[in-house]
Formats: sequence, structure tokens, C-alpha cells
Amino acid sequence: MAGSTFGTLFRLSTWGESHGPAVGCVVEGCPPGVPLTEQIIQEDLDRRRPGQSRITTQRREGDEVEILSGVFEGVTTGTPIGLLVRNTDARSKDYSELKDLYRPSHADFTYQAKYGVRDYRGGGRASYREATGRVAAGAVARQLLAQRCGAEVVGYVLQIHDIVGQVDGDRVTREDVDANITRCPDADAAERMIAAIEQARRDGDSLGGIVEVVARSVPAGLGEPVFDKLTADFAKALMSIPAARGFEVGEGFASVQMKGTEHNDAFEMRDGKVRTRTNRSGGIQGGISNGENIVLRVAFKPTATITSEQETVTAAGESVTFRAKGRHDPCVLPRAVATVEAMVALVLADHLLRQTVNQIP
Amino acid sequence: MAGSTFGTLFRLSTWGESHGPAVGCVVEGCPPGVPLTEQIIQEDLDRRRPGQSRITTQRREGDEVEILSGVFEGVTTGTPIGLLVRNTDARSKDYSELKDLYRPSHADFTYQAKYGVRDYRGGGRASYREATGRVAAGAVARQLLAQRCGAEVVGYVLQIHDIVGQVDGDRVTREDVDANITRCPDADAAERMIAAIEQARRDGDSLGGIVEVVARSVPAGLGEPVFDKLTADFAKALMSIPAARGFEVGEGFASVQMKGTEHNDAFEMRDGKVRTRTNRSGGIQGGISNGENIVLRVAFKPTATITSEQETVTAAGESVTFRAKGRHDPCVLPRAVATVEAMVALVLADHLLRQTVNQIP
Amino acid sequence: MAGSTFGTLFRLSTWGESHGPAVGCVVEGCPPGVPLTEQIIQEDLDRRRPGQSRITTQRREGDEVEILSGVFEGVTTGTPIGLLVRNTDARSKDYSELKDLYRPSHADFTYQAKYGVRDYRGGGRASYREATGRVAAGAVARQLLAQRCGAEVVGYVLQIHDIVGQVDGDRVTREDVDANITRCPDADAAERMIAAIEQARRDGDSLGGIVEVVARSVPAGLGEPVFDKLTADFAKALMSIPAARGFEVGEGFASVQMKGTEHNDAFEMRDGKVRTRTNRSGGIQGGISNGENIVLRVAFKPTATITSEQETVTAAGESVTFRAKGRHDPCVLPRAVATVEAMVALVLADHLLRQTVNQIP
Amino acid sequence: MAGSTFGTLFRLSTWGESHGPAVGCVVEGCPPGVPLTEQIIQEDLDRRRPGQSRITTQRREGDEVEILSGVFEGVTTGTPIGLLVRNTDARSKDYSELKDLYRPSHADFTYQAKYGVRDYRGGGRASYREATGRVAAGAVARQLLAQRCGAEVVGYVLQIHDIVGQVDGDRVTREDVDANITRCPDADAAERMIAAIEQARRDGDSLGGIVEVVARSVPAGLGEPVFDKLTADFAKALMSIPAARGFEVGEGFASVQMKGTEHNDAFEMRDGKVRTRTNRSGGIQGGISNGENIVLRVAFKPTATITSEQETVTAAGESVTFRAKGRHDPCVLPRAVATVEAMVALVLADHLLRQTVNQIP
Repeated sequence: MAGSTFGTLFRLSTWGESHGPAVGCVVEGCPPGVPLTEQIIQEDLDRRRPGQSRITTQRREGDEVEILSGVFEGVTTGTPIGLLVRNTDARSKDYSELKDLYRPSHADFTYQAKYGVRDYRGGGRASYREATGRVAAGAVARQLLAQRCGAEVVGYVLQIHDIVGQVDGDRVTREDVDANITRCPDADAAERMIAAIEQARRDGDSLGGIVEVVARSVPAGLGEPVFDKLTADFAKALMSIPAARGFEVGEGFASVQMKGTEHNDAFEMRDGKVRTRTNRSGGIQGGISNGENIVLRVAFKPTATITSEQETVTAAGESVTFRAKGRHDPCVLPRAVATVEAMVALVLADHLLRQTVNQIP
Repeated sequence: MAGSTFGTLFRLSTWGESHGPAVGCVVEGCPPGVPLTEQIIQEDLDRRRPGQSRITTQRREGDEVEILSGVFEGVTTGTPIGLLVRNTDARSKDYSELKDLYRPSHADFTYQAKYGVRDYRGGGRASYREATGRVAAGAVARQLLAQRCGAEVVGYVLQIHDIVGQVDGDRVTREDVDANITRCPDADAAERMIAAIEQARRDGDSLGGIVEVVARSVPAGLGEPVFDKLTADFAKALMSIPAARGFEVGEGFASVQMKGTEHNDAFEMRDGKVRTRTNRSGGIQGGISNGENIVLRVAFKPTATITSEQETVTAAGESVTFRAKGRHDPCVLPRAVATVEAMVALVLADHLLRQTVNQIP
Repeated sequence: MAGSTFGTLFRLSTWGESHGPAVGCVVEGCPPGVPLTEQIIQEDLDRRRPGQSRITTQRREGDEVEILSGVFEGVTTGTPIGLLVRNTDARSKDYSELKDLYRPSHADFTYQAKYGVRDYRGGGRASYREATGRVAAGAVARQLLAQRCGAEVVGYVLQIHDIVGQVDGDRVTREDVDANITRCPDADAAERMIAAIEQARRDGDSLGGIVEVVARSVPAGLGEPVFDKLTADFAKALMSIPAARGFEVGEGFASVQMKGTEHNDAFEMRDGKVRTRTNRSGGIQGGISNGENIVLRVAFKPTATITSEQETVTAAGESVTFRAKGRHDPCVLPRAVATVEAMVALVLADHLLRQTVNQIP
Repeated sequence: MAGSTFGTLFRLSTWGESHGPAVGCVVEGCPPGVPLTEQIIQEDLDRRRPGQSRITTQRREGDEVEILSGVFEGVTTGTPIGLLVRNTDARSKDYSELKDLYRPSHADFTYQAKYGVRDYRGGGRASYREATGRVAAGAVARQLLAQRCGAEVVGYVLQIHDIVGQVDGDRVTREDVDANITRCPDADAAERMIAAIEQARRDGDSLGGIVEVVARSVPAGLGEPVFDKLTADFAKALMSIPAARGFEVGEGFASVQMKGTEHNDAFEMRDGKVRTRTNRSGGIQGGISNGENIVLRVAFKPTATITSEQETVTAAGESVTFRAKGRHDPCVLPRAVATVEAMVALVLADHLLRQTVNQIP
């Protein structure tokens, strides 16, 4: 089974290559009656769009979305939603000399090993451009969540390289996040992050980092044991993003050095509801949401594309050195926030629908 | 769609509760002609079995597996493989007073929120007993891998609480891992781990840790972009294990503080094959295996069951204090190794089959 | 993807061979709170059971079902329901001489061509014994339908060979159907059917026929365009039953010779609801139920096993003649009714759950 | 799970409404290296295109396809293939007075019952226009079949109303089929069919019929017991086509009146292969292809749209009479052939890929 479909009830299928005519997706399973316009989707796409600031790639794509189906008179109809974004600023000739060369830590070699043929232009299907479809679909998911349960998803850059922001995940808003071009809502850290990214670009180098994402007002009861636990589906969703190398929920890796007496979240009654006093579990217990804020983190490696000279081999097995051309992000984090949020929204929308079967009558 | 099925072509469906009559699974999609006997499965089950050493729960289950279908004259037939393990040592009365109480950081509350009804005995479906089916299926997956590509999967305890073992993942064997009851192949660290676990039990407390797993001789080309990347499917597989809180591949979270020039794995020719000089990617690039060793880590929180007094609430909303009875693992890591290996083997078997469609003329 | 799983939200996986230790199934996705006992399932199994009358195979199976999981205190818990039926009267030696021989119009040759290995005893997986799991799961589906919408499914033998019964599908009950051993509720036709079946057995021959099934009180709105139309899923469900060769809904093949003015079902208001004046559509329009009775028919070929001498070839390519031994049904129709009903109930249960996502605010 | 996706390994997702901006599909899972151009797809689309002859609807669509992804330098790359066809001749105002009215035997009422909202223009998603995506994907499937096993699929009109053609399914070619505008390769019957269709149009009436389809050179071994039998998947595929009301394989409903001694297909050796002397099974035994020609038939009801006056009700429950406007097919059969072939090719492509996992060492 091919791997370009995500979700079970709320399903996303993306298609498209970096330098093909267009990228896009089909969203299947969105219930009828959800308000949706191109403008709503466009707002999210603009946050992922290349060329949005001086610290991102300078490829200039308008990323204008067209709704091709599934929406009638401003609401979804329950039929598949086709979404299309034309590629307008591909410069394929930048890649012609990479045709037979395997860029280190890129997908060139593995695509060749897998398929025996590949569209080498701009990374083809492995390009971050594929995420356009994810973000567009995430906007649809977000509309569903807003309508059905009021859940909201806010992601932000927590760390770039060794610079860690201070963020209050329980209160931070999208406006806070978009207040600067790093999408780290700690203004002081953001300033240092910008400097580090610009220095990396000058050095022909690249940086990684951590995106944290918080989902608030998620009802208790979402997640399907034993394999489709919310933890598991979030992990899959976020680890499917290009350059993701690590995932954690709640205390995550730090829980390893805590004892049970330190890590357990005591239950108490609050406002007439069962609540936990602490939230070390990050809102998920036994793979099911418990009604507390869901807190996730994803680690991104430094971008594989660097303009320093690198050694590698060609398809013919010759050793060569090369320098990357083309337009690249020295640090993918600021643009990755929109994709992380989209994937989280998609998982929640899917599980919200999956949980409906348990609630009737 | 319910969540007790894992995999697409090589599929596992587990069923069973901790204190029901039995646990088991159905393995669908295993190709014909794979050698399989009850003895082969039993060897893996014995490594997950409760009561196997003084540092695990003292529940005594023989965990004897019966093959009910899909095997004829010692090989698989291509039809579904039904596997059954009877529960023989359930003591349900230990749990009768927990019937209306939500144990902190357990799944009691979330199962109730999700389903409105639950089998509270021994954690029901959320019990680690469910993993019996995973381990049994993992043994089948391992047989397939051995036959088709010689891949092998070795997991081990890397860390318990703050004690970190030194292990050479490229060479460690299952025999090394089973050399002591912790399943940490660093004998010195293992000794300290045992002491820490025994101390935790005496303190009415519990410990977490990290399991590392290495898959060797995996062919290049496995993994299905863009959502069913190998990274994504491993993340889902391992984050679906009870108590898992974090996942990483290769350098993982440590990659965040590396620069592109430090993290990229240069390609070179070695023995006539395209190889990477370093393996910071952990054997996966662009979500597809590159032929190097696959290196994964999963972080487990400390066991939620502790015998110290804890505060919580009941279904009726009353605040109470309680102490856990029953038989528990103060640290789940030594028994978790078999489950981690099983899940990794299942993902590899699934992707090995998925890749076959790309290889025919 | 292997083919032993049916359904998307209400899912059935069957496993087991005719002469293996047991047959059974896992039902995944049944919501919590549905009343279920072994007795309820047993009643349906007894209608499919071999040896139930003088016109069926004389293999004597008690077909006693054991619920292994997913039910607690008399109701489903939302977790997978494991069901087990031991085989007790297999006589494998009847089949040892068929080991290398391809019985005409059986699955011997095609299983060998597909898998390269097969359990030849009693037809192995291709045996009608596999339907045990379907019928058991169908009983669970029926419980769900009864609880959620009051829908009921009644099947009956409409025709055997050239003997056609007269049945009022809008009113016939299960009691009517079970009033005689043919399961044709037309007593006069039934008598002639029994005579024909007994004659066929004496002649070393076999008979086919048609089962009609009516689903009543099905709410309007079930069915998922464009591929998972109710018509399409019923067709798949019923054509997956051994020996099925044709399927139709409403007027079916007879509609071919009607004109639009004759076939269209005019809408009218009746009891405050939109109803059709006629029901030539058989309750399904555009692939979605319209609230009228659903009427389906499935054609079964004559049983492939006959005791007359037949010509065939062996695996080694030698021409041989042989006569079937073992115990067989000269006409599978009377026992097929339970399976047809089960499959229809499974499809309806699945679509009932699928429709829930469209109904929430 | 939404129903606009078909297939498991070779997967088709269609999207689009009759009067939306476009229709199209995504084909996922097509292996790399299959030759594909827009011209190849266009040839098949032209056979389904409205306005192609005087006996079809006069809506004028060029149905020009654009390949948006998944093809590079003339071959598939293994990534999803996005296909787009713009709608250019929709006349939505013909439908504005149908907005609140349920046309008899159309999907208007059932879509409303299901979704609570619908795009009423031209039948929306229920329009035969959706089949554009099916036919485009079928062209891809056909390319795969040609490359991998040489299988070919030929469909033709066998019957319209009471006029039955004489066709030799073992030898008929696409050229024979396209020799006249009915797509019945019996020239004499075709002439009468044309007259009958033209008479029906003059009468404000419509006609149904039967399409027969033959798949030749299909390897033995395709089909996945027990639910995804080839019979079952063909049944689903063909019964998902608008207006399909019946399905049969081989002798189909006629087998009911045959005895086992008459229906069984004796095996014999021919040209060194195991072959059947007769082909009453239509190429499928036990749900698996046996290497003989696959023979299927699908019955289509008369088109629901007729220009005679009809009675019905409105959404408000008022009784009304109306006459259909807009442009319609008085008989859908000539254009349905392309869709039937496409669905058969899609099923075969899917099962060809599914069978690969059984063939490796």
C-alpha cells in the first residue's frame, strides 16, 4: 500500500512534486456542514509559504489554493475536497547537475534504491513542498475541530540549535507565535535565533531545533487502543514530516529520570470534572486524551542542504565533491510550525470522528 | 476504525484482556512458505513472560502459545495465522476495590471516558498482557525477515533511571542481551540497575528507562513516503507500547544541537556499495532505509503502579487515598525489550512486503 | 493486503481451516454497551451448523462458540471480540488421496497456483467451515442493529434448481424460514426442494439456487458514495460467500427489460415521511439506503463436490478419474441462509457506524 | 471511512462534482517504470466523453486530462499520480428548479438524507461525471497490466432492453467494439439498439441493458480469500457504477438451473498447462483466477432521468409533477463500457500487485 494517505476517517492524500506543475491533496471524510473557503486555507498556507521572510528560502511561491470540489455555498458537502496549488517559481536547471549525484542526508539515494527512477528536480516528492497539501488539509481539520469541540492547536519554535525559548504553552496564541519571523514567541530568544540562522547561512551551514505544539480544549476519550493510541498517531504524524528525528509527549525523555511517585498525575475534582493536578502525561493516558492540554515536541535535524563543499558519490559510483545551489532554508523550523500544527489537527480531527461511534445512542 | 490492528500488508490484530479467558492475535498477510512452529514463537514469549525473574511482576503465566490456523506441515500457508495464549494466573479479586477508582496515570479514567464501560480487572485491555499477541506476531515477522533478507533485530535496555549502559549496537547479540535479568548487555550497569529496581520496589516506587533497538542487514529501499516513512511507522509502532513517552532515530534529539556540516552523513563506496561514512541518520533517509544499521530508542516513563499511598478520585467524584495491591513490575524495561523488538520486526516485515511491488520488472 | 478482513468500522477478521484445531474470528470496532452472550451467537451458529438435517452434510460439529475477549458483564466493552469454535469431527484421512489432485470447480488448483502450498484437508481455508466466523460475527452485528436502529435481516431460500418459492419478503419472519429444513418459507415448494435434493444426492449430483434476503427498518442515509455504495458493499459481501455466482438488488437483471417510465419509483409522502410508491430500487438509490426495505438476491452454483466420477489432472500433470469421498452438502442453500444474513448484517452494522460521523451537529 | 477510494495496493481516489470547477483523481500505488502519457489516458476518456455521438447526452466536454504529478520523463515514478479534468460545459441553471425536488430513482433524496446538504447542480457527486476519474485511472491500470502480464480487458454492450447481441468474448477486440456508436460488436443488433434508443428519447423514456466484459491473459493466482476474492472485488467494482443493479460471473444466475455434473469444469493438460475443458466458472474458482478468460456481466437499469412527466415530492413535503430538463443519456450503456473496463482493469492491477508478496522466494 502506498504511503501518501494519512488518517482513517478524516483522510488526507497528498500528491505532487517540487518541480511538477502543481501540488495538492484530497481530503476525504470531512463531514458535511463545516464552513470552508479558500481564504481560510490560504491563511495557513501563507505561514508555510517559501519566501515569507529573510530567514527562509527565497523561492517565491504565491501558494494560491483552489478548492476544486466538496464545498458548496460555503460549507463542506461530505464529498471529497480537492485542493490545488500551482507551482510557479520552480527553477529546475539548478538541479540538472545533481541528476546523478546523491546529496548527503537527502533522499536522493534512498529514492533511487526504492524506485529505480526519480524526479531529481528540487528533491521531487521528498521536497518540503509536499507539505503544502498537509497544511491545506490541516486548515480543513482545524475548521472541523472549531465547529465540533472548540479544540485549538498552537505550535511554536521552542529551540533552535542551543537557543531555548521560554513559552507558556497553556496560554500562548497564534498571534504571539507570528509576532516574529522565527515563530518563537519568546522575543529575546527569537532575536538570538535570527542571528544564529543568519550566521549559519553565511557559514554555508544549517541548524535544527525543536517545535512544541499544544492542543487545548480536546475532549477526553480520543485515541483508539491499542495501536492507534493518540500518542502513537501523533508520533507517526510528526515523524512523517521531513527532517523529524525525535518525538515526545508530556515529560517525554525527561520522564526516564523521574520516579513513579514524581511522575504520576494525581486526579482531583475541579469545576465538577475529573482533572489531573499536574500534567506530566501531556494530556494522554493509556493512549487516550484525558481532557488536559496535549503537549508534544518534535526534534528536527539541521537541514541537509548546506552550501559548504561536501563529499559524496554518483550513481555510477564515483567519488565527487560538490556545493549545493538552488534556494534553501538554513533552518526549517519557522516554516515547519504550520506543518506541525496541521498534522496535529489532522490527527485530532480523525480521532474526533472515530470516537463518535462510541457515543451513540 | 478500531485500533487493534497494526500494519498494512503484514497485519497483526491483537485481542484479549488481562483477566479474560485468553489473549491472542491473528497475523494476516504472512506469505506462504515461512517456517513456523509453536516452539519458535514460545522462545520470544518466554522473554516477555511475567514472573521470569525477581525484578519482574510475580504473576505466574506459562504463556503457552497454540497455533490455531495458517500453518501446515511446518510452514505458513498464506492464510491467517491464529495464535492463542490462555490466561491462567489472573487474580481478579485484587482489583475489585479499584472498580470505581481512577488510578493515577493509568488508563482507568480515559477508558471510562471513552467507552462508558470497562473491564477494570488488571487493567483490562490496557494491561501489558495485551503485548503477548504482539510478541507472538513479532516472532512470525522475524521468521519472514530471516527467510527473505536475513535482517535481524536486537533490542536492549540502554538506560534505567539515571544508569546508562555502554553497548555497541553494531555487534551486540541476543545472547549478550539475555546474559542478565535486566537485558542491559553492560554487566556493570546491569548490576546497578538491579539494585535500583529492587530499591524502588522496597520504596513502593517505580522506575523508567530507555530501550535501544538495532536492526541490521535491512535492505535499502524500505519505507513509503510521505506518511508511511520508516521513521513514522517505527514511531507509531513503538509509541503504541504502554508507557512509551518518547521516540528517536539516529542522533534523535541530540541532532538539534548539531549543525548540518556535523550531522550530514557523507556517502562513499565500500565493498562496491553506496554506504555512508557515518550513521547519524540511523539508517533512514527521507523515510527510507539506506542499508545502514537502523538505530531507534524509546523512552518509557516509570510504571504507573506504585505501592506508595496515592491520592485520586472515584467515579462518583469523591477524593480518596489508596495503595496498589496486585503483582506489578517496579520497572517494565527488562520485559519491554521483547515487545520493542517485536514491533520493529513487524514494521520491517510489513515494509519488506510493501516494497515487493516496486521490484517486479 | 490479505483478504480475510471485512468491513471498515465494524470489522471482521476470520481465521481457520476446515481440519485445523479451530475456526474463529475477531470482531473489531463494535461499540461498547451492546448486549452479547455466547447463547446469542450460538443460535445463529446452529443454523449454519453441519449435520443439522438429513439434507446437509453429515459432518457432526457442535460448533460451540467461546467468547474470549471484548465482553464484560454481558455487554461489549468496545475492545476486540475474540470468538473461538473448536473443530471436533474432522476426518482428514478422507482427503489424503486428494492431496495431489485438483478437484474440478474447487479451489484446489487456484490455491496451489496462488500460494504454492496448501492445506488440502477438507478444502482447508476454502472450506465452507470458514463461514463459522462470519456467522458468529453476524450475530454481533445483528445485536448492534437491534440496539441502534431496530433493523432486522431475514434471508430465505427462494429457489433451488428450477423450483421457485413464493415468499412475501415484506412480512416473512425467521420463524417462517426455520419452519422446514430447506429454509424456504413456501411449504409446498420446500417439499419439492427436499425431494430434488435427495434425488441429487442419490444421483451423485448437486444443485444450486437463489437466496433472497430482506433488510427492514434500515434508516435512510446508509452507504458511502462513490465506491462504498451500499449496493457495492452488499455485492462484495455476498459474492465473497463460497459458490456465489450472481448478485442483484431490487429488480436486478429484470430491470434491463424495463423502461425508465416503468422502473422509476415515484416519491410520495406517507405517514409524514418521504417514501417511494413502488420499491423497484430495492431500498437503495445512488448507493444509499432510502428507508424502504432492502431486497437482495444471490445465486449459488451447484456444489462442486459430487460423488459421480469426474475427470481431472494431478499436480504432476497426469489425467485421472476420481470420485469424491467425505461428507458433503448436495445443496448448500439451506445452510447458506445464515451466512447470507450474517454478511448483510455486517454490511449494515458497518455503514450504520460510518454514517454516525455525518450526524453530529 | 469515506467511500471515494477504491483498491488496496493500486488505489484510486476520485473527487469532483458535475458542475464544480473540475473532476479528477489520485492514483496511489502504481509502481515506478510504467509508461504513461496524457495521450494514453485521453484515448480512454474519449470513449466515456459526453457528446461523442447522437445517442448520448449532448453536453459537450472536451474532457482534456492533465497529469499533475507522479510521471517523469514518460514513466511513472512510484509517487501519487494526480489527474485533472476541467469542467467546461456545465449549465447549472438547468438545475435550479430541481433544487428542492427529489427526482424519482435519482440520488437527490438519499444524498439529502445522508448529508443534510447537497450540491444539486447536475446531480453533484452522484453524476456520471464522477466516472471521469475512474476511466483515467483505469488507463493507468491498463498500462500496468500490459507491462507486467499482458492482460487485456475488453468490454462491450451485450444487451439493450430486449435486444441481445451475439459476441464471441474470446476474440472480440476494442476495434470491433468501437466499430459502431452502441459499442455492441454485433452490427445487426447494434442497428436495432440505435433505433430503440432513439425511439426511447422521442418517447421521453430511457433504456437499460447489460455490459459484458472479458479479461484475457490474466495469470492464475489472483484474488485474496476469503473476502477479497476476485469475484467479490469485481462485484463491488462494477456494482459501484451508477445504475448498476446486477452482477454475475461465468454462468452466473444461469448456473442455478444447472447440476454439478453440468456445471463443473473438468481440468485437463493443454500446452503443458493445467486448463479447464469448459469455462463455466468464468475464469475464477475459489475466488482466485485460474488462468482462463474472466467473464463478467453487469446489468444497468434504465436511466433515471426521463423527460416524461413524473410525480414526486419536494423537500418541504409537497406533491409535485415535473419534467426533466438538461441534457441526458436515454441509455447509458454505450458510454458505460469504458467505465466497466476501467473498473475491471483497476481490480486486476490491484490484485496483480497483491499477489507479488506471495511470489518471492
